[in-house]
Amino acid sequence: MPQSRVSGKWQVVAIVGVGLIGGSVGGAIRQRKLAEQVIGIGHNEHELEWARHRGWLDTWTTSLAEGVRQAELTVVCVPVDQIANCILEAAQHMPANSLITDVGSTKRNIVVAVEGKLPGWVEYVPAHPLAGSEKSGPYHADPDLFVQRQVIVTPTRSNTSAGLLRIRNFWTALGSTVQQMSAEEHDRMAAAISHLPHLLAAALVRATPRQWLPFAASGFRDTTRVAAGDPRLWTAILLANREAVQQALELWEQQIVMVRRLLEAPDGPGLQQWLAQAQQVRHALGSGNPTDRT
Amino acid sequence: MPQSRVSGKWQVVAIVGVGLIGGSVGGAIRQRKLAEQVIGIGHNEHELEWARHRGWLDTWTTSLAEGVRQAELTVVCVPVDQIANCILEAAQHMPANSLITDVGSTKRNIVVAVEGKLPGWVEYVPAHPLAGSEKSGPYHADPDLFVQRQVIVTPTRSNTSAGLLRIRNFWTALGSTVQQMSAEEHDRMAAAISHLPHLLAAALVRATPRQWLPFAASGFRDTTRVAAGDPRLWTAILLANREAVQQALELWEQQIVMVRRLLEAPDGPGLQQWLAQAQQVRHALGSGNPTDRT
Repeated sequence: MPQSRVSGKWQVVAIVGVGLIGGSVGGAIRQRKLAEQVIGIGHNEHELEWARHRGWLDTWTTSLAEGVRQAELTVVCVPVDQIANCILEAAQHMPANSLITDVGSTKRNIVVAVEGKLPGWVEYVPAHPLAGSEKSGPYHADPDLFVQRQVIVTPTRSNTSAGLLRIRNFWTALGSTVQQMSAEEHDRMAAAISHLPHLLAAALVRATPRQWLPFAASGFRDTTRVAAGDPRLWTAILLANREAVQQALELWEQQIVMVRRLLEAPDGPGLQQWLAQAQQVRHALGSGNPTDRT
Repeated sequence: MPQSRVSGKWQVVAIVGVGLIGGSVGGAIRQRKLAEQVIGIGHNEHELEWARHRGWLDTWTTSLAEGVRQAELTVVCVPVDQIANCILEAAQHMPANSLITDVGSTKRNIVVAVEGKLPGWVEYVPAHPLAGSEKSGPYHADPDLFVQRQVIVTPTRSNTSAGLLRIRNFWTALGSTVQQMSAEEHDRMAAAISHLPHLLAAALVRATPRQWLPFAASGFRDTTRVAAGDPRLWTAILLANREAVQQALELWEQQIVMVRRLLEAPDGPGLQQWLAQAQQVRHALGSGNPTDRT
């Protein structure tokens, strides 16, 4: 076993897709000196060169095959609808005993799509860092994006304990806390705490008559901030996790039916209790993350 | 006309209800030296004394009659369901040619309730500063709460241009931009940009399975922040503005029906367009207020 693995340091890490997340992963690895070399892989040469110049990458290429050829670890940071194909293609060119992880906001669709199709010399450990922003692109990348954030790892049937441990350690080294759950559980969780809120924020923006928007104060801005997210990325996420999002929407609709009745009655004490229960839960959640940037 | 009016300075200003907003009004007046004396009126002696000590008030009393007896201006900062009665009672004890304004989040219910019942020597000019917080109480008051915020003034049929101007100048002196509209228009606006978002945030918190809350990241926290607001205050607001809130909820439900269909189809291009329109509007809104405190 080479020295690098024992020390938790990697020789070559390839990052496929150098946007907000990919750029942040690269910057985080380089800032913490966790690899000898970070190679960025993408389509946009201008952005890749910018990311290299900014210090997020050591080098870059537009060829997936070339970029991953020596990569002990490949981190796939492309949109969720491209991750599975990207993993399958990258694996063909990766060296023996190498690892792939990803940052996709959905997990089951990817796990199902790659299942049984990976070559024996590559192990894929699915992951999802619960970090991000309504912004996108390498220009908004941040080497501390994963600090004090949670990363969900969803082991597959073919994962080895050694592979799992190395990927857990990778994310821990970037400052995150790693949690494990099944891909199905992850997708239900993500639907509830991320995908549904996004959809509701977008619906709220759309439902607001334009003439009132100039009066929107901090409450409205907070409530709708996530709706500024990239529509292409979010379409892919919502479609990939369609069933769980629909289920979350059902649960949500029950609350709307309930409050609509309380308003129609009108039932003051009932409404106050309905609001008080929400307040109690929201208070327990705290005001924000220490690394929040709004 | 006494010198004080010419210079835009008040002799005595009474503030009824010294919580987050009332305390901030008092602090703003005193910091800007806009009055000779600021008198706080409330029930909780401990909070009133704290507010005086903190510099939000010059003096305080628990007697409404005493507190407003010499007040050229009374600012009513009690919950919306108590404002109308408070105005009617205060007016009985106020001096000749005095003014009342308020900070209620709803306007029509108050205007209707006081219409034709005020004595001739007092003029009431309804107002609503679009500022606030999910926090409450004088401990969170801030003399700069109204800086760069909008204050909506909703003139009644009995308002004089002189009275209206003095109240507009009062809020302008606190750092706000003043807008005028009808009480009905205000209430529809407030339902769309404040009351509905509050209700939706509360519903989202309630609809989220408890076991997923520990995974809530900044997106969920932003989207639900307003749900931490005081349930008693918000029940009063939602009931006072019930019809406009119900109408806003209808508009909103149309968006949910739309996105539900797009998910069910599934219609990727349609969903992306639906999200893109929301993103465009949200972008135009900007990321937040300069004086945001989260």
